[in-house]
Amino acid sequence: MLRMGMIGGGLGAFIGPVHRRAAELDGNIRLVAGAFSRSADTSRASGLAYGIAPERTYPDYRTMLAEEARRPDGIQFVSIVTPNDMHFAIARDAITAGIGVVSDKPATTTLAQAIELRQVIRDNSGAYALTYTYTGYPMLREARALVADGALGALRKVVVEYYQGWLATPGERTGNKQAEWRTDPDRAGIGGCVGDIGVHAFNLAEFVTSSRVQELNADLSKVVPGRTLDDDCTILVRFANNVPGLIAASQIATGERNGLRLRVYGEKGGLDWCHERPDLLVLNRADGVTECRHAGSDSLGPSARAATRLPAGHPEGFFEALANIYGDFAQMLSSKQERGDGLLQTIDEGVRSMAFVETAVESSANRRWMGLRDV
Amino acid sequence: MLRMGMIGGGLGAFIGPVHRRAAELDGNIRLVAGAFSRSADTSRASGLAYGIAPERTYPDYRTMLAEEARRPDGIQFVSIVTPNDMHFAIARDAITAGIGVVSDKPATTTLAQAIELRQVIRDNSGAYALTYTYTGYPMLREARALVADGALGALRKVVVEYYQGWLATPGERTGNKQAEWRTDPDRAGIGGCVGDIGVHAFNLAEFVTSSRVQELNADLSKVVPGRTLDDDCTILVRFANNVPGLIAASQIATGERNGLRLRVYGEKGGLDWCHERPDLLVLNRADGVTECRHAGSDSLGPSARAATRLPAGHPEGFFEALANIYGDFAQMLSSKQERGDGLLQTIDEGVRSMAFVETAVESSANRRWMGLRDV
Amino acid sequence: MLRMGMIGGGLGAFIGPVHRRAAELDGNIRLVAGAFSRSADTSRASGLAYGIAPERTYPDYRTMLAEEARRPDGIQFVSIVTPNDMHFAIARDAITAGIGVVSDKPATTTLAQAIELRQVIRDNSGAYALTYTYTGYPMLREARALVADGALGALRKVVVEYYQGWLATPGERTGNKQAEWRTDPDRAGIGGCVGDIGVHAFNLAEFVTSSRVQELNADLSKVVPGRTLDDDCTILVRFANNVPGLIAASQIATGERNGLRLRVYGEKGGLDWCHERPDLLVLNRADGVTECRHAGSDSLGPSARAATRLPAGHPEGFFEALANIYGDFAQMLSSKQERGDGLLQTIDEGVRSMAFVETAVESSANRRWMGLRDV
Amino acid sequence: MLRMGMIGGGLGAFIGPVHRRAAELDGNIRLVAGAFSRSADTSRASGLAYGIAPERTYPDYRTMLAEEARRPDGIQFVSIVTPNDMHFAIARDAITAGIGVVSDKPATTTLAQAIELRQVIRDNSGAYALTYTYTGYPMLREARALVADGALGALRKVVVEYYQGWLATPGERTGNKQAEWRTDPDRAGIGGCVGDIGVHAFNLAEFVTSSRVQELNADLSKVVPGRTLDDDCTILVRFANNVPGLIAASQIATGERNGLRLRVYGEKGGLDWCHERPDLLVLNRADGVTECRHAGSDSLGPSARAATRLPAGHPEGFFEALANIYGDFAQMLSSKQERGDGLLQTIDEGVRSMAFVETAVESSANRRWMGLRDV
Repeated sequence: MLRMGMIGGGLGAFIGPVHRRAAELDGNIRLVAGAFSRSADTSRASGLAYGIAPERTYPDYRTMLAEEARRPDGIQFVSIVTPNDMHFAIARDAITAGIGVVSDKPATTTLAQAIELRQVIRDNSGAYALTYTYTGYPMLREARALVADGALGALRKVVVEYYQGWLATPGERTGNKQAEWRTDPDRAGIGGCVGDIGVHAFNLAEFVTSSRVQELNADLSKVVPGRTLDDDCTILVRFANNVPGLIAASQIATGERNGLRLRVYGEKGGLDWCHERPDLLVLNRADGVTECRHAGSDSLGPSARAATRLPAGHPEGFFEALANIYGDFAQMLSSKQERGDGLLQTIDEGVRSMAFVETAVESSANRRWMGLRDV
Repeated sequence: MLRMGMIGGGLGAFIGPVHRRAAELDGNIRLVAGAFSRSADTSRASGLAYGIAPERTYPDYRTMLAEEARRPDGIQFVSIVTPNDMHFAIARDAITAGIGVVSDKPATTTLAQAIELRQVIRDNSGAYALTYTYTGYPMLREARALVADGALGALRKVVVEYYQGWLATPGERTGNKQAEWRTDPDRAGIGGCVGDIGVHAFNLAEFVTSSRVQELNADLSKVVPGRTLDDDCTILVRFANNVPGLIAASQIATGERNGLRLRVYGEKGGLDWCHERPDLLVLNRADGVTECRHAGSDSLGPSARAATRLPAGHPEGFFEALANIYGDFAQMLSSKQERGDGLLQTIDEGVRSMAFVETAVESSANRRWMGLRDV
Repeated sequence: MLRMGMIGGGLGAFIGPVHRRAAELDGNIRLVAGAFSRSADTSRASGLAYGIAPERTYPDYRTMLAEEARRPDGIQFVSIVTPNDMHFAIARDAITAGIGVVSDKPATTTLAQAIELRQVIRDNSGAYALTYTYTGYPMLREARALVADGALGALRKVVVEYYQGWLATPGERTGNKQAEWRTDPDRAGIGGCVGDIGVHAFNLAEFVTSSRVQELNADLSKVVPGRTLDDDCTILVRFANNVPGLIAASQIATGERNGLRLRVYGEKGGLDWCHERPDLLVLNRADGVTECRHAGSDSLGPSARAATRLPAGHPEGFFEALANIYGDFAQMLSSKQERGDGLLQTIDEGVRSMAFVETAVESSANRRWMGLRDV
Repeated sequence: MLRMGMIGGGLGAFIGPVHRRAAELDGNIRLVAGAFSRSADTSRASGLAYGIAPERTYPDYRTMLAEEARRPDGIQFVSIVTPNDMHFAIARDAITAGIGVVSDKPATTTLAQAIELRQVIRDNSGAYALTYTYTGYPMLREARALVADGALGALRKVVVEYYQGWLATPGERTGNKQAEWRTDPDRAGIGGCVGDIGVHAFNLAEFVTSSRVQELNADLSKVVPGRTLDDDCTILVRFANNVPGLIAASQIATGERNGLRLRVYGEKGGLDWCHERPDLLVLNRADGVTECRHAGSDSLGPSARAATRLPAGHPEGFFEALANIYGDFAQMLSSKQERGDGLLQTIDEGVRSMAFVETAVESSANRRWMGLRDV
C-alpha cells in the first residue's frame, strides 16, 4: 500500500476528489496526507472531510513535504491537482525532497520550465508521471500495441479531434469559474483551447502511433467575441516519414460534450476510437470488414487486459482510466524501476507537449508551417 | 465515514474487490473488517492484502459479527458477497445483531427464505439493501423519473432483454468456475439464466415503470445439451392495466457480451437504454424526433444528477453505478431514515424477485400463464 | 425487357408508385398496361399520368387480362397492389390466364384461400412471387447464406422484432386511411399487427435460418382502447430441434419508425441486422470480436453481391430491395425456370404466412402453445 | 414526361446505369436517345440493351444533338456521364443547340473552361445542372434549411470530411480502371483526391451553410509512393466573418468506405450528418440534449419532405438522392423558370469548385494561405 499526499483538491474543488477516487480505486494507494488549499482553514476542513488524520493535514505544501519526509510512515508521492501555475514549483520541490510526483497536466506553464523540471527529475532520479488520462484507457493501449505490432502496416495518416462545446457562450463573463481561468492568459498560459485540450489530442496521436510530429501549421481562432486566447484550433501536422495528420480541437463546437476521437490509418487497416464509447476499438480492415474489439475481452493484448477490471460488456470509464495511470505509477514506484513500456506519460511527454503548444501558437500567429523542435 | 465489514470476497474472488471499490469510491465508507473466506487462512491472507488490521480479519462471519458488535468503532454494516446459498443466513444474523446489510443479489435462494428474511428485517428495523447494480445507473434513474413524472403518458408496453453469450459453450465442463456453479441447481437454485440475469431484467422493468408484473408465461430452455437448468428464457408478461411486456434473457446468445436493454413505451413517447452505452438515454418522441439525453448533463432531473460525478462526455460505468447504491445505503444508514424515493432496492424487491423466478420456472414447466403473486 | 401490367396503384395510392419504381429500376421490366383503380375514370387518369398508352389502360383487371392475353406484345406478368382482399381473386385469374403474378403481401386473406391459390399455381405451372420486401435486402441474403454455409454452426436462438409506433394513437378515428383499413377486421382479416408486420418478422426468421417454426405461443394485445384487432403481439416460438425463438411486433411502440431487427445465434456466432441501417450486417463472433460487413463489399458472398448496385459506402434502400425481388422474378420468368435458391418468396411462403397468422390468433385467444401446421 | 438523351454510359460503364435509374425513378423523365460510347458499335449495342429505339442510338454526341434537335419529339436535355475531359465540350455544344444539360461533376477540367461555359449558358439562357449527388439527400437539405432559418444562430465552425480507403494500395498498377484515370493528371486534371472528392466536401460546406470560403491553406499529400497527384488532402479554411473551418478528404484512409461527414456549429447548436446513415440528421443542442431527425418524418421542413418518397424508417439512398437532382432539374425545365431555392447546383457552383481545386493545389505547393477568388 503506497502512501499518497495531495496538493490542491480541497473542498469545492472538482479535480481533487476525482484523483482521490482514481488513486485509491485498486486498493494499492491510500491518501494519508494533504495540503488541500492555499487557505490553511480550507485545507484543515478538507482533511477532516476526507478522513485524513488532523496532524497530516497541512497548511501549505512545503510544510507537508518537510514533515512527511521526516515520518517513517511518510508519504511516498504527491498528487498535484492545483491550478496549472503551481505545478512546476511543487513538482520541483517534491522531487528534490525525494518524494514522487503524479501531476495533473500540464507539467508546467512554459516550455522552459518543463525543460528545467526534466533536469531536476533526472538529477534526482525522481519518479514522475503526468496524468494524460486518456492514455489510461484500455482500448487506446490496445490501439498503441496494434500499431507497434504492425497490425496496420506502415503508418499512412493520423487524425485526432477533440471537440467540446462548453465555451460556445462566454461563460467567463457569467461566473463560470472553469471558463474564467481557462480563457485568462495569466492563468492558462499562452494556449487556450490548444493548451487545454489540443494538447491531449497531440499527446494521444504520438502515444498511439509511437511516431512524432515533425512540423505543423496551426490555425488558432478566437471565435467567441472578446476572447484573448484561442477557443478553437485546427492544426495540420506531419509525422516522421512525412505522414500527414490532423490535430483539431474546439471548445466552441456547440453541443459537443467531450468528443475526443482518434483515427489512425496504415497500409493494412484503420483504427477508430471515440471517448464517448471508450470500451470499443474499431479496426477497419483493408478487405472491407470492420472489426470491433471490446474492452474486457480475452482476445485483446496484454496491455489492454491489464488495464481492465471487469468482463466485456461491463463499462469502465474515466475514473478507471485515471486509476490505470496511478496503478502504473505505483508499480514503478514499488519496483523502483522504469516501466519501459512507454505507457506512463512522463516529463518527456510534458516537455514535448509544451513544445507543441508554443509552436502551434507561433505558427498560427505567423500563419505558416513550423518545425516542432525535439528539445 | 461509515465502517464496513465484508463477508466473502477473499483473494481470488472476483466480486469482493468490485464491491470494495464501489463502496469506497466516494470516500464515505471504509472497509475495516472482514471474514473473507470460509478458510481462516485465506481470510487472514486476504485481510492482509486488503490492508485490514489483522485483529479485524476474522476466521468466520459469526465471529466477526460478535466481535465487531462489541467494539466502539465496530462495523456499521456488512457487505455480503458470498455464494448465493449463504446470503440468507448471513443477512439474518447480521440484522439480528443490529448490523446493516448490503447483500449481493439474490437475497436468498428461495421465496420462503426471502419472506422470512423480510420479517426479520421488519422485526429488527434493520437496514438492508440489495445490489441490483443496474438500478444505480443515472440514466435508468432518469428513465424512472421520466415515467413517474408522466413524460411518456400512460404506459403502453415494456421490453427488457438481457442477452449474454458466455454460456454458449459448456464451460462448466472445461473448468470455468463461474459456469460450474451457475449451471448447478444445488448452488444456483431452481433458476439458471432466469435466476441469474432474467431477474435483473424483471427488476429493472418494475424499477423504471413503477408498475408491477401481474402474470407471466415463461419459456425456459436448456439450449446447450446436458444442462439441467435453463440457459435461455423468454417470458411474456402483463403489467397492471393489462399492459403487455416482455422479459427476455439468454446466456447462450453467442457473441453478446452483457446486452441489457430496456425499452418502455407510453402514449407520448418511448425510452430506450442499453447497458453498453449507459450514459445515454434515448427518448423517441411521438412527433418523430428522437432525443438523446446524456449523463452529466445539466438538463437531467435530480435523481440522475445526484448519481453522476463527472460532466457530460466523461463516461462512468459499472463501478460508479454500484457506488451509487452504496452511497444511497450510506445515506439511509447515516440518517436512520428510509429514503422514500424507491431508488434503493430492499428486501421487498428481493421477495418479489424470488416470486418471479419461482413463478417463471413453474409457468415454463406447465407451459401456461400464471399469476405473479404479491406475497 | 419484360412487360408488366399493374392492378391497383392508381393516383393517390401510395404503394403503386413504389412498385413501379422498383420494377423498372434495373431497366429489364417496363410498365405498359394497367387497371389502376376500381373506378374506370381514376384508372384512365392514372394511366395518363404514368405515361401508359390509353388503349392499355383498362377499366378493370378482368378486361386487362383478357385483352392483354390477346396482344402479341401483351403483358407477361401483373403486379398486384390492390387492397388485401382482392389479392386472391386477381392472382388466381391471372395465373389461370397464363400471366405471371407479383403480388404484394399477403397472398390472400385466409389460409384456405392461400392453399387454393397454391393449387391453381401448381396446376397451371404459374410464375408467382410475393413481395416480402425485406428478403430483397442484400445483407439479409448474406445472413441467409452465412447460416446455410454453417458460419454460425448449429442454430441456437432466433429473435426477430418489428416495432412501429404509428398506431400508438387511434389514427383510424381521425381520418388516417392506412390506420382505418388496418384496424378493420373486414378489410385486414383476423390479424391486426400480427398480420400486417408480425408476418414479416416470421417470414424473415424462416428466410434467414432456413428453419421452420414448429409451435408458438402468442400474446396479442389490443393496447389502444377501442380496437377490435391486435395492435401489438409477442410470440414465443420453437423452431425445428426445439430451438427457441421470439417473434415480436408492435404498432403502438411510440416513437419507433420501422424498427425491424433480426438476430440469429448459433454455436459459433450471432448475426444482427437492423432495417434502419440495412447495409450493415453484424457478426458477433464467439471469440468476442464483432465483425461488421457492408453491402457492396467484395468480401460478401454471391447472393449479396448480386443484390447490390453500388460500391460499399453508397447506401441503397427500400426501393432497391424491392427491385431485387422484381429482378429475381424477371429472371425466373425469362428463363422459365424455378430459381432454386429460395430467395424468391412464393405461394409456399404465402401459405405458411397465413398459417402463422391464423395459428397466432388462435393461440392468443386460447392463451396456450399450439403447433404450426405444415399444410 | 421529359425526354432525355445520354452521352456516355455505354455497356460496361458504371455511372451510366446509375444516372439512368435516378433520372427515370420518379416517372417524369424517360431515356429515349443516346450516344453511349465513342465507339459506334458499343453505342449501338448499348442502346439495344437499354431498350432505346435503334434510330435514336447515335454513333457520336454531335450527331445526336443535331438529329434530336430536328425531331418534334426530340430530347429536351442530355445527361453527360462521359469521362471528365469531355464534359466541357459536350455541355457547351448542347446548350448552344438549345438542349438542356445535366452534367456529372466536375463541370470542366479547368477553371478557365468553367468560366467560359458559364458565359455560354448565360448567353443562351441554357438549363444546366451539376450532379453533386449529396446535395440531393433530404437531410442535407434539412440541414441547409435549418442553418438558413437561424436554428443554429450565428455560424461558428464548419467541418466536412470525406474519407475513402480504396486508393490505399496502388490499384492503378494492378488494372483498376477507376484508379488508373483518377491518378493520372492527363485525365483527372491537377487535382487528385482534392478534385475527386475534396470538392464534394467543399461544395457541401457551402451548400449547407449558404456561406462562402474566403481563404484556405491546403496540405495535399501523395501518400502512396509513386503517385503524381494528391491522394489525401487536409485544408484549413475561413468562411465569411472569419468563421473557421476544415475540409478534409482522403482516398488512402484504409478501411473507410465512403465516409462523408458534415458538422456545422452555430451559437445555438451543432448539426451532424454522415453519408453512411443518410436518413439521420443529428442536432446537438446547446442545452446538452441531442435531437435526431429522420427522413420521412412529418416534423421536417418542406425541402426535406419534398425530397423523400417513403415514410420514416424506410431507407432511401444514393439513387434517390440523385433522382432528387434530376427531379429538380425536370421541374425547372418544365416550368422554364429558375428554381430560386439554391438547391440545384449550377454552373456557378461548377466555377466555384474549379476555383477551389486550383487554389488548393497552389496553396499546398506554396505551403501558405491563399484567398479563394470569387470569379
